[in-house]
Amino acid sequence: MKLKDIAEKLDCELRGDPEIEILGVAGIQEAESTDLTFVSNPKYARKVKDSSAGAIILSPEAPPSEIPTLISPNPYLTFARAVELFYAPPIPIPGIHPTASVAETAVLGEDYSIGANVVVGEHVSIGDGAVLYPNVTIYPHAKIGDDFIAHSNSVVREHTSIGNRVILQNGAVIASDGFGFAPREDRSYYKIVQSGVVILEDDVEVGANSCIDRATVGETRIGRGTKIDNLVQIGHGSKVGEDSVLAAQTGLAGSSDIGSRVMLAGQVGVAGHLRIGDDVIATAQTGIARSVKDGSKISGTPEMESGLWKKNYILMHNLQGLVREVKQLRKDLEALKEK
Amino acid sequence: MKLKDIAEKLDCELRGDPEIEILGVAGIQEAESTDLTFVSNPKYARKVKDSSAGAIILSPEAPPSEIPTLISPNPYLTFARAVELFYAPPIPIPGIHPTASVAETAVLGEDYSIGANVVVGEHVSIGDGAVLYPNVTIYPHAKIGDDFIAHSNSVVREHTSIGNRVILQNGAVIASDGFGFAPREDRSYYKIVQSGVVILEDDVEVGANSCIDRATVGETRIGRGTKIDNLVQIGHGSKVGEDSVLAAQTGLAGSSDIGSRVMLAGQVGVAGHLRIGDDVIATAQTGIARSVKDGSKISGTPEMESGLWKKNYILMHNLQGLVREVKQLRKDLEALKEK
Amino acid sequence: MKLKDIAEKLDCELRGDPEIEILGVAGIQEAESTDLTFVSNPKYARKVKDSSAGAIILSPEAPPSEIPTLISPNPYLTFARAVELFYAPPIPIPGIHPTASVAETAVLGEDYSIGANVVVGEHVSIGDGAVLYPNVTIYPHAKIGDDFIAHSNSVVREHTSIGNRVILQNGAVIASDGFGFAPREDRSYYKIVQSGVVILEDDVEVGANSCIDRATVGETRIGRGTKIDNLVQIGHGSKVGEDSVLAAQTGLAGSSDIGSRVMLAGQVGVAGHLRIGDDVIATAQTGIARSVKDGSKISGTPEMESGLWKKNYILMHNLQGLVREVKQLRKDLEALKEK
Repeated sequence: MKLKDIAEKLDCELRGDPEIEILGVAGIQEAESTDLTFVSNPKYARKVKDSSAGAIILSPEAPPSEIPTLISPNPYLTFARAVELFYAPPIPIPGIHPTASVAETAVLGEDYSIGANVVVGEHVSIGDGAVLYPNVTIYPHAKIGDDFIAHSNSVVREHTSIGNRVILQNGAVIASDGFGFAPREDRSYYKIVQSGVVILEDDVEVGANSCIDRATVGETRIGRGTKIDNLVQIGHGSKVGEDSVLAAQTGLAGSSDIGSRVMLAGQVGVAGHLRIGDDVIATAQTGIARSVKDGSKISGTPEMESGLWKKNYILMHNLQGLVREVKQLRKDLEALKEK
Repeated sequence: MKLKDIAEKLDCELRGDPEIEILGVAGIQEAESTDLTFVSNPKYARKVKDSSAGAIILSPEAPPSEIPTLISPNPYLTFARAVELFYAPPIPIPGIHPTASVAETAVLGEDYSIGANVVVGEHVSIGDGAVLYPNVTIYPHAKIGDDFIAHSNSVVREHTSIGNRVILQNGAVIASDGFGFAPREDRSYYKIVQSGVVILEDDVEVGANSCIDRATVGETRIGRGTKIDNLVQIGHGSKVGEDSVLAAQTGLAGSSDIGSRVMLAGQVGVAGHLRIGDDVIATAQTGIARSVKDGSKISGTPEMESGLWKKNYILMHNLQGLVREVKQLRKDLEALKEK
Repeated sequence: MKLKDIAEKLDCELRGDPEIEILGVAGIQEAESTDLTFVSNPKYARKVKDSSAGAIILSPEAPPSEIPTLISPNPYLTFARAVELFYAPPIPIPGIHPTASVAETAVLGEDYSIGANVVVGEHVSIGDGAVLYPNVTIYPHAKIGDDFIAHSNSVVREHTSIGNRVILQNGAVIASDGFGFAPREDRSYYKIVQSGVVILEDDVEVGANSCIDRATVGETRIGRGTKIDNLVQIGHGSKVGEDSVLAAQTGLAGSSDIGSRVMLAGQVGVAGHLRIGDDVIATAQTGIARSVKDGSKISGTPEMESGLWKKNYILMHNLQGLVREVKQLRKDLEALKEK
C-alpha cells in the first residue's frame, strides 16, 4: 500500500515521499524498509534516527525526521488503526454451526456467527453481530447487547447483563458463584446461594481465564470501557468504574469499590470493602489494605505512597549498615562515658 | 411472603409486626422497606437504626430494634437460608442432552442432568442427583459421589475420586499433571508420568479456573468441607484438612500439608513440603517459607507473626527519619568527643 | 515385576537380591516392602535406613544400603522412568470422535486421537501422533508438529506455531489477545488489533489455565524445553529461552525477555521490557522491576540479591529493638552532654 493511501485512510498529514510502498507495521526497533512504525513517547524520539523503518507516525511536536512521516496528534492511536490496514483476523463463519445447541426460547439479533458446540440457554437474548467461537456456553436468562465477541471456552452464567461491544477472551468466566459461606457452630460451612447478578457495561473486555463473581444479593458491576487482563479475580459484589485498567493476576476481594480511570498493575491485591478513588495508580504486586484517595500513586504491601516506598527500598539495601552503625554508636558512647 | 411465614420456615422467634410483606433479601445498606436483612457482627449493630429494611435478623444478644425482627443464634446462617426463599437458580434440564457423549461403560445414578456437549469417559461412576452443565469433561475411571455439581468447562481427570455434594465452579481443573520433571545432564527436562490421584472429600467446593494437580505417586487430598476460591493452585501431593478456606489466587507448592480450619487470604503463597498447622490464619499476600504452628496468625513475605508485621510496617513509614537520626547521633557524638 | 527385570529395563547395575518382587513405586517415606523408591539429594541419604522400601535407586557415590539397590548416575531420572513401568495413563481412543468438527481444509498426520466435541479450524495442520482430548479448540491457521497432546478445554488461537512433543494441560490458552489499548483524548481506550503470533518450540509444556498472549505485531516465543506451570501469565511479545521453568501463578508483563535455564518460583512477577539473564533464579513472590544479570539469585519486591534479602529479613524481626536503641542512644547522649 502506498504511503499516500495510508495517510488518507488514517487522515494524517504526510511529510516526505508519498509513493513509498508499505507492506506492514512493526515496532521501531524491528521495523524494516517496508514497515510503518511510530513514536509516541517523546523519550524515544532519539530512536527515530536509528530506525530502518520505511515510514513513521509522529506527533506534530516531534523533531522532523528524514523518514517519510505521518503526522498525528495521537501517534499510538493512529498506529493502532494502521495495524488494521494490514491484518484482519480470520472471519468467523456466519450462521449457526450444526453442532451448536441454541435453546428455542433464545433470541438472537442479526449477522451472527455461532460456532461449533456453542450452547445458548433458555431465555437468553443476544443483540446483532454476535460472534460466539466454538465451545462457548451461555447460561439461561443472560441479556447481551450488540457486537458481542466471546472466545472459545468463555462462559456467561445465568441472569448476567452485558452491554454492547463487550469482548470475552478464552476461558473468561462471568458470574461464577461468589465465595460466600456461613459458618455453622461446628466450624463447617453452609453454602450461601449466590442470587446476585453481574453487569458488564459497554466496551468492557475481560481477559483469558479471568473470573468475575456474582454476589449473594445485589450486583457486581464493571463500568463502561474498563479493560481486565488475564487471570484477574473480581470478588462478589465489587464495583469497578469506567475506563479503568486491571492488569494480569490482579485480585479484588469482595465488595471492592474501584473508581474510574484507575490503573492496577500486575498481581495487585485489594482487600474487601475498600474504596479505591478515581485515577489511582498501584504499581505491580501492591497489596491494598485500606481505602485510597483519588489520584494517589501507591506501592508495597501494605500500600504506601510510591515515592516513600522507593526511598525505603533504597534504605533497606543498607539496613545492615544502619544496624552496625547503631552498635558502633553505642560502643563509642560508652567509651566516651568511661572518660 | 409475610414475615410470620418466613419466621416459621427459618424457625426463628419473631418480634414486631408479623403481617409485614417481604419481597426479597438485601445487605443492610441496600435494603428497602420490603427487604429482609441481617446483622451478624456486633460491630455493625449501630447500622440497624439507619437501615430502611422491612425486617432484620438479629442475635438474641443484639439491642432490640424498632424494625420487625427475627431472632437467630446465627444471623448469617439464617440469612443464608432466607436467600433461598426468594431465589432459585435456573433448574437444570433432567436427562441426557442428545449432544452429550456418555461412555457405555459409565455408570450414572438417578435424577441426573447431563448438559449439552458433556463428555463422560469410560468406567466413570457418578452417584445420584448429578448436574453436569454444558461442556463439562469427565476423564475415564473417575469415581464421583452423590449430588455432584460441575459447572461448564470444569474438568475431572482420570482416576479422580470425589465424595458427596462436591461443587466445581466453571473451568476448575481437577487432577491436571503435577509439575514434575527430572533434569538430564544437559539441563533439559524429562517429563515424569504423574500417576497419582486427586481425592476431593465430601462437601468440597472448588472455585472457577482453580487447579488441583495430581502427583507422580501418591495422592493430593482436599479434606471434607474445605472451600477453595477462584484461580487457586494446589500443587501435586498436597494435603488440605477439613473446613479450611483458601481465598482467590492463593498457591500451594508441591507436598504442602495444610491443617484443618486454616484460613489463607487472597494471593497467599506456600512453599513446598511445609506443614501449616490447624487454625492458622494468613493475611493476604503472605509468603509462607517455613512450617507454621497451630493457631498462628501470620503476615508478610517471608511470614512473621501478624502483630510484629504491623508494628514493623508503621516503623517502615519512618525509616528515613530513623536513618537521619542515626546520622545526627553520630554528628552529635563526634562533636561531644571533640570537647 | 522382579527387580532384575527392572534393572535391565532401566539399564542399572543391581546390588542385592535380584529376585525380589516389586509392585509399584513410591516416595521414600511412603514406600512399602513391594515398592521401589529413590534418593537423589545426598541430604536425604540418612532416610534410607528408616525406609521400608523393597528396593531403592541410589547414585554410585551414595553409602551402600542394606535394601536391594539399583545404581544410577541420575536416580531421579531413573525413578521417573521407573514410574512408567508401573503406570500407564488411559489410552486415548484412536480416530476422530463423531461429535468432533474437523474443517475440511485441516490436515492431520497419522495415528491421531481426536476426542468428542473437539473443534479443528480451517487450514490447521497437525503432525503425527496427536492426542486432542474432548472439548479442545484449535482456531484456524494453526501449525502444529508431531506428538502434540492437548488436554480438555485447552485452546490454540489463530496462526499459532507449535513444535514437536508439546503438551497443553487443561484450560491452557495459547495466543489470547495481548492487553493492548490506545488511550483516546477522553481517556477511553481503543482496542488494538493483536496481529502477532505465538510460537511454542519443541518440548514445551504449558500448565492448566495458563495464558500466553499474542502481541500487536511480532511474536511471543517460548523456547525449546521450557516448562510452564499452572495459572501463569505470559504477556504479549515476551520471549522465554530454553529449558527455563516458570512455576505456578508467575506473571510476565509485556515484552519480557527471559533467558535460558531460568527458574522463576511461584507467584513471581516481572515488569515489562526487562531482560532476565540466563540461569537466573528468583524465589517465590519476587517482584522483578529491573533487568537482572546472568546467574543472579534474587528475592523480594522489588528484587535484591537473595542473601541480602535474607539478612534484611532477620534484621526486620528486630526493627522495633533498633528504633528503641536509637531513642536510648539519644537519651544517653543528651544526658552525657548535660554533664
